Amino acid sequence: MTQDNSANSMWGGRFATGPDAIMTAINASISFDKRLYAQDIAGSRAHAAMLAAQGIITEEDATAIRQGLLTILSEIEAGRFQFSEALEDIHLNIESKLTEMIGEAGKRLHTGRSRNDQVAVDFRLWTRDQCDAAITGLTALMQAFLAQAEAGADWIMPGFTHLQTAQPVTWGHHMLAYVEMLARDRSRFEDARRRMNECPLGAAALAGTGFPIDRHMTASALGFDRPTANSLDSVSDRDFALEFLSASAICATHLSRFAEELVIWSTAQFRFVKLSDKWTTGSSIMPQKKNPDAAELLRAKIGRILGSTVALFTIMKGLPLTYSKDMQEDKEQVFDAADTLMLSLAAMTGMVSDMTANREALHKAASSGFSTATDLADWLVRSLGLPFREAHHVTGRLVALAEEKGCDLPDLSLSEMTSAHPGITQEVYSVLGVENSVRSRMSYGGTAPDQVRAQVARWKTLLG
Amino acid sequence: MTQDNSANSMWGGRFATGPDAIMTAINASISFDKRLYAQDIAGSRAHAAMLAAQGIITEEDATAIRQGLLTILSEIEAGRFQFSEALEDIHLNIESKLTEMIGEAGKRLHTGRSRNDQVAVDFRLWTRDQCDAAITGLTALMQAFLAQAEAGADWIMPGFTHLQTAQPVTWGHHMLAYVEMLARDRSRFEDARRRMNECPLGAAALAGTGFPIDRHMTASALGFDRPTANSLDSVSDRDFALEFLSASAICATHLSRFAEELVIWSTAQFRFVKLSDKWTTGSSIMPQKKNPDAAELLRAKIGRILGSTVALFTIMKGLPLTYSKDMQEDKEQVFDAADTLMLSLAAMTGMVSDMTANREALHKAASSGFSTATDLADWLVRSLGLPFREAHHVTGRLVALAEEKGCDLPDLSLSEMTSAHPGITQEVYSVLGVENSVRSRMSYGGTAPDQVRAQVARWKTLLG
Amino acid sequence: MTQDNSANSMWGGRFATGPDAIMTAINASISFDKRLYAQDIAGSRAHAAMLAAQGIITEEDATAIRQGLLTILSEIEAGRFQFSEALEDIHLNIESKLTEMIGEAGKRLHTGRSRNDQVAVDFRLWTRDQCDAAITGLTALMQAFLAQAEAGADWIMPGFTHLQTAQPVTWGHHMLAYVEMLARDRSRFEDARRRMNECPLGAAALAGTGFPIDRHMTASALGFDRPTANSLDSVSDRDFALEFLSASAICATHLSRFAEELVIWSTAQFRFVKLSDKWTTGSSIMPQKKNPDAAELLRAKIGRILGSTVALFTIMKGLPLTYSKDMQEDKEQVFDAADTLMLSLAAMTGMVSDMTANREALHKAASSGFSTATDLADWLVRSLGLPFREAHHVTGRLVALAEEKGCDLPDLSLSEMTSAHPGITQEVYSVLGVENSVRSRMSYGGTAPDQVRAQVARWKTLLG
Amino acid sequence: MTQDNSANSMWGGRFATGPDAIMTAINASISFDKRLYAQDIAGSRAHAAMLAAQGIITEEDATAIRQGLLTILSEIEAGRFQFSEALEDIHLNIESKLTEMIGEAGKRLHTGRSRNDQVAVDFRLWTRDQCDAAITGLTALMQAFLAQAEAGADWIMPGFTHLQTAQPVTWGHHMLAYVEMLARDRSRFEDARRRMNECPLGAAALAGTGFPIDRHMTASALGFDRPTANSLDSVSDRDFALEFLSASAICATHLSRFAEELVIWSTAQFRFVKLSDKWTTGSSIMPQKKNPDAAELLRAKIGRILGSTVALFTIMKGLPLTYSKDMQEDKEQVFDAADTLMLSLAAMTGMVSDMTANREALHKAASSGFSTATDLADWLVRSLGLPFREAHHVTGRLVALAEEKGCDLPDLSLSEMTSAHPGITQEVYSVLGVENSVRSRMSYGGTAPDQVRAQVARWKTLLG
Repeated sequence: MTQDNSANSMWGGRFATGPDAIMTAINASISFDKRLYAQDIAGSRAHAAMLAAQGIITEEDATAIRQGLLTILSEIEAGRFQFSEALEDIHLNIESKLTEMIGEAGKRLHTGRSRNDQVAVDFRLWTRDQCDAAITGLTALMQAFLAQAEAGADWIMPGFTHLQTAQPVTWGHHMLAYVEMLARDRSRFEDARRRMNECPLGAAALAGTGFPIDRHMTASALGFDRPTANSLDSVSDRDFALEFLSASAICATHLSRFAEELVIWSTAQFRFVKLSDKWTTGSSIMPQKKNPDAAELLRAKIGRILGSTVALFTIMKGLPLTYSKDMQEDKEQVFDAADTLMLSLAAMTGMVSDMTANREALHKAASSGFSTATDLADWLVRSLGLPFREAHHVTGRLVALAEEKGCDLPDLSLSEMTSAHPGITQEVYSVLGVENSVRSRMSYGGTAPDQVRAQVARWKTLLG
Repeated sequence: MTQDNSANSMWGGRFATGPDAIMTAINASISFDKRLYAQDIAGSRAHAAMLAAQGIITEEDATAIRQGLLTILSEIEAGRFQFSEALEDIHLNIESKLTEMIGEAGKRLHTGRSRNDQVAVDFRLWTRDQCDAAITGLTALMQAFLAQAEAGADWIMPGFTHLQTAQPVTWGHHMLAYVEMLARDRSRFEDARRRMNECPLGAAALAGTGFPIDRHMTASALGFDRPTANSLDSVSDRDFALEFLSASAICATHLSRFAEELVIWSTAQFRFVKLSDKWTTGSSIMPQKKNPDAAELLRAKIGRILGSTVALFTIMKGLPLTYSKDMQEDKEQVFDAADTLMLSLAAMTGMVSDMTANREALHKAASSGFSTATDLADWLVRSLGLPFREAHHVTGRLVALAEEKGCDLPDLSLSEMTSAHPGITQEVYSVLGVENSVRSRMSYGGTAPDQVRAQVARWKTLLG
Repeated sequence: MTQDNSANSMWGGRFATGPDAIMTAINASISFDKRLYAQDIAGSRAHAAMLAAQGIITEEDATAIRQGLLTILSEIEAGRFQFSEALEDIHLNIESKLTEMIGEAGKRLHTGRSRNDQVAVDFRLWTRDQCDAAITGLTALMQAFLAQAEAGADWIMPGFTHLQTAQPVTWGHHMLAYVEMLARDRSRFEDARRRMNECPLGAAALAGTGFPIDRHMTASALGFDRPTANSLDSVSDRDFALEFLSASAICATHLSRFAEELVIWSTAQFRFVKLSDKWTTGSSIMPQKKNPDAAELLRAKIGRILGSTVALFTIMKGLPLTYSKDMQEDKEQVFDAADTLMLSLAAMTGMVSDMTANREALHKAASSGFSTATDLADWLVRSLGLPFREAHHVTGRLVALAEEKGCDLPDLSLSEMTSAHPGITQEVYSVLGVENSVRSRMSYGGTAPDQVRAQVARWKTLLG
Repeated sequence: MTQDNSANSMWGGRFATGPDAIMTAINASISFDKRLYAQDIAGSRAHAAMLAAQGIITEEDATAIRQGLLTILSEIEAGRFQFSEALEDIHLNIESKLTEMIGEAGKRLHTGRSRNDQVAVDFRLWTRDQCDAAITGLTALMQAFLAQAEAGADWIMPGFTHLQTAQPVTWGHHMLAYVEMLARDRSRFEDARRRMNECPLGAAALAGTGFPIDRHMTASALGFDRPTANSLDSVSDRDFALEFLSASAICATHLSRFAEELVIWSTAQFRFVKLSDKWTTGSSIMPQKKNPDAAELLRAKIGRILGSTVALFTIMKGLPLTYSKDMQEDKEQVFDAADTLMLSLAAMTGMVSDMTANREALHKAASSGFSTATDLADWLVRSLGLPFREAHHVTGRLVALAEEKGCDLPDLSLSEMTSAHPGITQEVYSVLGVENSVRSRMSYGGTAPDQVRAQVARWKTLLG
């Protein structure tokens, strides 16, 4: 895909035989790279304006080119443009049509550039847009989680480790955990966007050009922070795609975790949450059955995105500089990953917004299993000065006693308490019970409803 | 995708709200699973025949069903069938159309089965076909390499380690190395095919059925060796897909290796091979430039297939039995990998058939760098009884002498030879020079032209 | 790692500077390839015997070599052998020690071979052993599942789709699903073993050798079916490693699925199974808490093995023939994956053997949610001849009625039944209730206890 | 690994049977997590100081703890510390030893924290250090490339696309392309470091704690920017590891590309570069052979790092909150990837510093193949105002003429030139020839020596 072979009808004539059907099938990219049409036209319009400003082409030619490209844009968006596989890719399809429309001037557009820098700028613009879309989608999902967090800042639920009840926490706190994850995702896309926001246009085939082009002008016109600084790197770099894929994979990992929670929480055994009918499918004869299809699909999407990530890393491995045709395989991977991510964010936002916590089931689950035994132990340390490890022994004895009696810790009498340790006082009851437990977790970022509300307030400000 | 929700208009009515656009986008599979239409129809036809044979439905109904399905098949293949996204998947699209066509009887088709075993049998049939296609494609490619091997059984070329010339070998020997790799690929697809060739139809939703179905009959009708032995496994197993992907990835690795060789061999520096114009692109102004586009794309395809492999492994990781909606993500990965593999095999077969070895460049490269020094050392061991490590010292001295004189080893005089070791005789010249070297490598599987011809003969017999 | 540089003290002298610490760190493999000591010695012993049989070395030398190698074997196994990093790898460490021990004869061992075919045969022997170990480990795990299946052939439990109760099945049936998966795993390792069981020894550096070696003799001595047929392929092939990794990854996927079930089944909400204390960790103060640590780790291991698989595929991508140093990276990946797999199989066998099904909880879960509604619908089809889709409508009305009354389907009176469809008779009650349901699933491979027992019997015979 | 089971001798007593050898093998992490000793001690020291400052423990206890931990640090670093597998992990090994040394006070250290936040802070500190190490290593490698770029700012070499000569560029320009890539790598590690620089200590088991701890104090003491804001997220987040792995994989991709170039450039056919003896291995009998072992190993390392990346993504996929034992598998992947990356950076820095460009071979390769045909075409556009596509036709005719005559473009006479287009003047010769060509590529970031020198100057300033 170097500059010089861009008019394939030209070199086609020199080859004894034309590319046959297999070669077309493996070589042509128009079936997928037509998605870059808007970016290709924007890039060409900026290039034409710059060529005229630098006196490389006339203003008349530039105007004809820029106008012609707008017409093509309309035709494509209206579905009237005829894409040709013989013209291989989106660049030649558009340029060929332009020349057909405006004649000679169209042939001057490609001055001082090459398909190598052209595809680099197109694909970078597209990926940059996807960063923006991811940031928007993430913000919406953060808001959905935040609304759940605000509503349930003090709803008690079990906090799990190993999917075993460990300590009571609040619904709001659990929802905010995802806000934190998604905020990191968002900042990763912001960083990726900033890093990719350099314009490769003007690198030409690979070496730069002898035409007196102004790369800063095109960079600025296309919203880039600056032109790239090395032409060889410009046409062989696909870091922006790898970084976008990596950030997407981390984000999809987060989604898979909440999706798994939704699947488990939707079981007959847990019943922690009720998903809305929009995101589930049912059974014509088992009314209680609500298959969490959307959650399951979201759980799976990390596989798809990770697959695309691995694909591009493997493709780029060991490629010598500069452009190699292997790199044509980059786009489908990024297209699929981006589509998957945006759809996943939208679906998850819908599910989170619509879901209903089953407060009763959550509270009941949190209260079982002596989930406040840690609070008792901590009280022994704090109030009686026992070393941590000894406090555990005392607590263990009291739990065993409660278990024997078939009651919970707050149901033990004070004399039963003091049988395990004489220093225990009435005050101990203030930390037992799940409400007391969560209320006490006032450390910064802890599950106490006041802490949760403070974080909700912080995020509401940050999200505007 | 369980049996009971298969008529989504039914459960749709019970849900307060219908799935909205996002849910449709993430949930509907008809856009890709319509590729299974032929398999779905074959499975349904076998199922209907069995239901009638077992007296579960009437012969009349079975005939109507089987005939109706054939009509649908024709419509689909003629491009006249209207696929509906509201009907979610290929199964419901076909069943719905069938009922529309033949009425009541159509509603009896789904007796004793479920979408869970239906999709399992469809997808397995499709993948089995791809194993066959891979075997056919591999055989063609083996034949292409074999033809090259036969033509060049005694053409000398450098044998590389670390991409450094190590010892002379023959073109035919190098070609046969790929025949061996591809033969292993073929046997992996044969094994995978044999292992997947069990019929899941009749597992129903997950538990089997109370209808007196005959699973051996449907298995046999669809060309399976036997029915699967456990209904839970039948609807949750995707091993056949994982194994197909793994075998494809190994095969694609082989293709990437030869593709890399083609790219390197096509450089101006190597010029070992001339690819035909069919598989390269050129430059309108640099006539000597032939970009090996097809080879580069084939080098990249392992990335794509490995990506699909990773995707499905990640998707299947940690899924509880039996069917989960996550598994709907299996098909696109296998479809893409299979399409990629078949296209790659075809393209490589074309390239190998058309390529022309540059015998002169190969011979010259093989002759440089004292590439027969090992032969000299081996002669010293064999004829003079020197220990291997000492023979290397003597050889080292002679190579240094030749290098100093700017000549090759065969150009040294016998007195120069004996200066390094007095026992060296005239006979030593019989092992120097690249022709002598390769001729001497008569160990089984070695590079001697006679060995190569023996292997060519063996493979010609095996490939028929 | 070509034949000619195997004595690095020799070439070391010619280089102006020696490899420094970084080079040693990146280049030396002795830290990990010493695991191949037994294979290396076995290969060398077979090679020496063959050299003598062919008259290439004397019987005396061969005896000294073979005896010396046995001594080295003892020293290594006794932990008395001093490995040297300066000697780079296991091959040079052993050969150097051998020469130190037996003098001149030791230097003759390397005749007619190279480190390239030596490492190929060593690593292949090691991987072949791991196939055997996997087969043994899988058989033990199958037996553990089989014992569970036999004990619980008729214990009722819920059959899940989407982790929602779909239909009742039996514990034995669920256990047998894993027997089927593991049987496929076993057959994959058998196929891989058969395919890799060709001996690369005698390929020498890459081209074969001029010494009159007998490759069939060494192949046979080392338990291979035959020698490999192409020397270039022999030293550059790592298919056996890729196939071993792929088979391991599929197996680990199965383990991750059961591990996930164990984690979920161990929750306070499910309580389907009680893991033994051996495989869990507890809490000093929460007695009911049993963290399923081993199950969680087994769930994770697919990640580790898939990682190794991806690593080796990526490493092998695009390598030109024959040996490249990149391939030195193969061993650590396979070592780690094999260790992980064997440990995982052992741990899972222990967990499955020790676990106790909570029959009461399983039965109760199976009975909820109108799980036999499908049976009712099927009865309507079978006994009253209703089309499948209509039977579902009738069933839906009856389920709604039962739900309204707060009872289960078998609790509805006959007149209530006939209100939904007049044809319903007393016989309908024979299919309602979970015992009736599972008993009715008599299709081959279905969940009926008799079917389960038949499969248990089949497997007991097969496993011996 | 929750707070409450941290003294495993305690819960060990309650279990009927102890963990056996398999469980120990799969469960214990001390064999690898002992690498976190310095971080664990730093974290504990900060925690103890804070507990005292907040009045939760006495100053005396804090002093004893902090002093005891320093003693343990010395013992570990001196190799005198006895690690115990029975104590499972680094945290218990150190705490147990501390209590043995200082008695009662040691038991107070674990107040207000848990192993869950402890391991989170340890691992994060370790990974943060690796970001710093990567940044340092990248800077050194950038400087090595920069030195090459400065020396060879005007050395002519071929610029490749598809590994075919496209246009002449300069050595300095090619070297600077890698400086750009590595600069992006560096900025990715900086971003990752900044994002991970929040302190999870104080999240306790998962819910925060009721002790009046000061998380800002510990965060500050450990060099974190702030404490994490959600305790559930704090103990279940491994984003920092995933991001470190992703950034490492992108960096390793860059290294693999230059490594591939080195392998190709080192062939007898290219001879573009001479690697120093430090990074190659040779042959005792083939003096010209220099196997680029280090380059090959560096080419492979992306496989290893990508494998670790895939491993951790797969492990984290679908894990419900908060801590699950699966996450114990995180460390070995990051350890291995970090070690691999740092070693790779060091080795590449050494190779780049030592390598010698073969200026003659580079120049000759650049001059072949009418590599300045593009310059001629551009001149026709620029000076004669031909449309780009027409200029190509004229150039094509002149190249054909030169090829026919067996000469290069500058060797054509002016009358031969004008035969193709009458407007061509003497001035055309000023753009032909490789020196003229590169000198003309003055666009920003182009290959003109002046542009290269400007970029060298910019980077020298930036790198200090």
